[in-house]
Amino acid sequence: MSMSGASRGTGRRTGSGAERLVVIGGDAAGMSAASQARRMKGPDELEIVAFERGHFTSYSACGIPYWVGGDVTERDQLIARTPEEHRARDIDLRMRTEVTEIDVGRGRVRARDVDSGAESWTSYDKLVIATGARPIRPDLPGADAPGVHGVQTLDDGQALLDTLARTRGRRAVVVGAGYIGVEMAEALINRGYEVTVVNRGKEPMSTLDPDMGRLVHEAMEGLGITMVNDAEVTKLLTGDDGRVRAVVTDDAEYPADVVVLGIGVRPETGLAKAAGLPLGNHGGLLTDLAMRVRGQQNVWAGGDCVEVLDLVSGQERHIALGTHANKHGQVIGTNAGGGYATFPGVVGTAVSKVCDLEIARTGLREKDALRVGLQFESVTIESTSRAGYYPDASPMTVKMLAERRTGRLLGVQIVGREGAGKRVDIAAVALTAGMTVEQMTALDLGYAPPFSPVWDPVLVAARKAAVKVRAS
Amino acid sequence: MSMSGASRGTGRRTGSGAERLVVIGGDAAGMSAASQARRMKGPDELEIVAFERGHFTSYSACGIPYWVGGDVTERDQLIARTPEEHRARDIDLRMRTEVTEIDVGRGRVRARDVDSGAESWTSYDKLVIATGARPIRPDLPGADAPGVHGVQTLDDGQALLDTLARTRGRRAVVVGAGYIGVEMAEALINRGYEVTVVNRGKEPMSTLDPDMGRLVHEAMEGLGITMVNDAEVTKLLTGDDGRVRAVVTDDAEYPADVVVLGIGVRPETGLAKAAGLPLGNHGGLLTDLAMRVRGQQNVWAGGDCVEVLDLVSGQERHIALGTHANKHGQVIGTNAGGGYATFPGVVGTAVSKVCDLEIARTGLREKDALRVGLQFESVTIESTSRAGYYPDASPMTVKMLAERRTGRLLGVQIVGREGAGKRVDIAAVALTAGMTVEQMTALDLGYAPPFSPVWDPVLVAARKAAVKVRAS
Repeated sequence: MSMSGASRGTGRRTGSGAERLVVIGGDAAGMSAASQARRMKGPDELEIVAFERGHFTSYSACGIPYWVGGDVTERDQLIARTPEEHRARDIDLRMRTEVTEIDVGRGRVRARDVDSGAESWTSYDKLVIATGARPIRPDLPGADAPGVHGVQTLDDGQALLDTLARTRGRRAVVVGAGYIGVEMAEALINRGYEVTVVNRGKEPMSTLDPDMGRLVHEAMEGLGITMVNDAEVTKLLTGDDGRVRAVVTDDAEYPADVVVLGIGVRPETGLAKAAGLPLGNHGGLLTDLAMRVRGQQNVWAGGDCVEVLDLVSGQERHIALGTHANKHGQVIGTNAGGGYATFPGVVGTAVSKVCDLEIARTGLREKDALRVGLQFESVTIESTSRAGYYPDASPMTVKMLAERRTGRLLGVQIVGREGAGKRVDIAAVALTAGMTVEQMTALDLGYAPPFSPVWDPVLVAARKAAVKVRAS
Repeated sequence: MSMSGASRGTGRRTGSGAERLVVIGGDAAGMSAASQARRMKGPDELEIVAFERGHFTSYSACGIPYWVGGDVTERDQLIARTPEEHRARDIDLRMRTEVTEIDVGRGRVRARDVDSGAESWTSYDKLVIATGARPIRPDLPGADAPGVHGVQTLDDGQALLDTLARTRGRRAVVVGAGYIGVEMAEALINRGYEVTVVNRGKEPMSTLDPDMGRLVHEAMEGLGITMVNDAEVTKLLTGDDGRVRAVVTDDAEYPADVVVLGIGVRPETGLAKAAGLPLGNHGGLLTDLAMRVRGQQNVWAGGDCVEVLDLVSGQERHIALGTHANKHGQVIGTNAGGGYATFPGVVGTAVSKVCDLEIARTGLREKDALRVGLQFESVTIESTSRAGYYPDASPMTVKMLAERRTGRLLGVQIVGREGAGKRVDIAAVALTAGMTVEQMTALDLGYAPPFSPVWDPVLVAARKAAVKVRAS
């Protein structure tokens, strides 16, 4: 075990006035934290060292499906800030350097140069863990064959694009029908593929209730996508060339020239676990509201590697989403820089689209509510994005859950076309404020015929929910 | 004075079990109230008589600019419910019948058949006043000339369309640059006219602060509309044929083949005033939170003829907007039908568009805040509707006002393209909930690259405002 940190100037410098902040992970949460800490304190007061094992920093993983689909033409458009830009702000960024151990007791991390294999320890006064998430890769025969791709990193995206460029066949199978799955289905449709989505759930988009997922299913079929539900993938078949040629489920076989895995992610917390830091039921690090790892004074964590408090259910959950990671980074950087900020929690808002279909949700699904002991009334309404007489008014379905008796809003799901997705923000703010559906019926929302019917679809749902709550 | 009400069966029927509800005004507020009261109580319990002086019921006045502009092809598309449909629900609707007096002491109204001139009294147990608003018509020479049009009613819209069909010249002048003015500018551009907007204000859209109005000014000029600010119209000139030919201001003359007046409206409360009912500083009826006219037990009022409580300033204001009228009607009908409902007030949300320019506001402008004694911090930010790398990401300017010290959100104004307008709903809900801008920075809003940058523009503004508040 090397102790050569001093050779790179990273030993604890007693007598120096500057503290050292070490950041593990160079994407959204980590580099937002580093940047914000730098805004709070200059290099004379705070040295910042950041380790990133990959080739890129601060990129939009959420943008990868649109790059693969061709809406975004250049990989570098997805990069918000390059290593050079970070270094120009006095952040000592070590690329292709993987942290292999956190020694909380002695306040140091061990890092390995990915290319040379050389290891060294770096001491810290303050530590930020932003190790992200890793995609779930099924332990299936053939899952590592050429032609099978994840889409978690920019490298993954490039590899998939390389495969698409090489592949003559036009049959694509997407395994998984969550956000990544449906967005990749759109990307491959845009690239001219025949797309089959194979999904173990009853309906696509298991982040929605099945009745709303059904609407997504039907709309995706309307786009020419073959949707296979209730299907467990058992293996991937390869051809004589070793490349993937089919996806096999319990009862069928789907020919594939390319396979995309979009099964979801898990918190990347191996290092944290080995260091004895507290993990929650979903495998993510547990923090306090200032994003400090519980039980630690000088260790923060944020982004896809932590669990967050769901303000509606009152319980922790894991959500890998760039917007949360950026907020975490902002809070961590403020605190690590000597200021004060908190991240109060989430309400579980998410939006997505497949071609012109918009899908949104916030708060609890029916099964989430039941799991935490909440009884509720549920309503579903049909309305339109604009006044019914206005051109391009498109249908929209809104489902709303409200707590029995109290009438507190518990969740909203929306499926529709243009104007459907971001309407969920109305409910996201109302959830945050703890509003009842009765209160929501009086919300003063923007109205003009090109923007909304005279009763916004969310208000129509609130009115119907309020009637049911009164009778509950 | 005729007392012949009995001849139409409208005298007070002592001994009958049914109460009588009389509604004055057959548009949004009045007919929503009538319909909701009918849902609450059947005809055996509640007789409902509604008077409408015009030809139409329950139509979307907000839709008239889109009908004139050709986006809506048929007048009847704007009619939500016809007189026959109301009558089929056991509402005794008297069209072309104008109420000329309210006798609160004796619980009766006098109505006149517009065509025959015959008058009669109708007694009521409960009364709803929904007399709407009347457009401001300048007392100017030439203002009544052929070719000069308001756009308040369906009849107005038809008259304007008839003029457009007859007129060979292509020069249109719109007087006024509020919502109606800018929407009519779009309508006339869509009809192929050269459009000049003459506006007495410093910038168009005086419902925005002038710095944001400036953005509207520039965008409208970019659409080829001639914008004239700081201009007081002094007269309208007519030609030999008696038709309008020019609009004259203090220092210029604008040739016009057609003139549209979009100067705003005032509450239509002559009847209410004559009956001794309480009016506010803006000329609208004053009600309690159940929409009952103050001091009255069995008289309600709603829609464009009332003042509403502004929840941000704590003072009454007048807002003529269909969405409020519908909510008022719902509340009034519930209460008049023996139930319970309230209208808590407004936060002043409004959206509009001119071609692809979207304009939105909620809460207080700078001058509103100053008028009610609020000190504030103001920030303006530029962002985009989608992730910057996503196709069709369009620029958006967000201005945000927050109270000094408390940081309470006071108002938001947004000018941009697609996706700008309805974003104001985020702020509308936050205002209703009394959130601070610091709290808003943590809002869990929908994020995906086609819908928003990773920090939604409203959050970017909230972050900047929070920084200023901390320093205030």
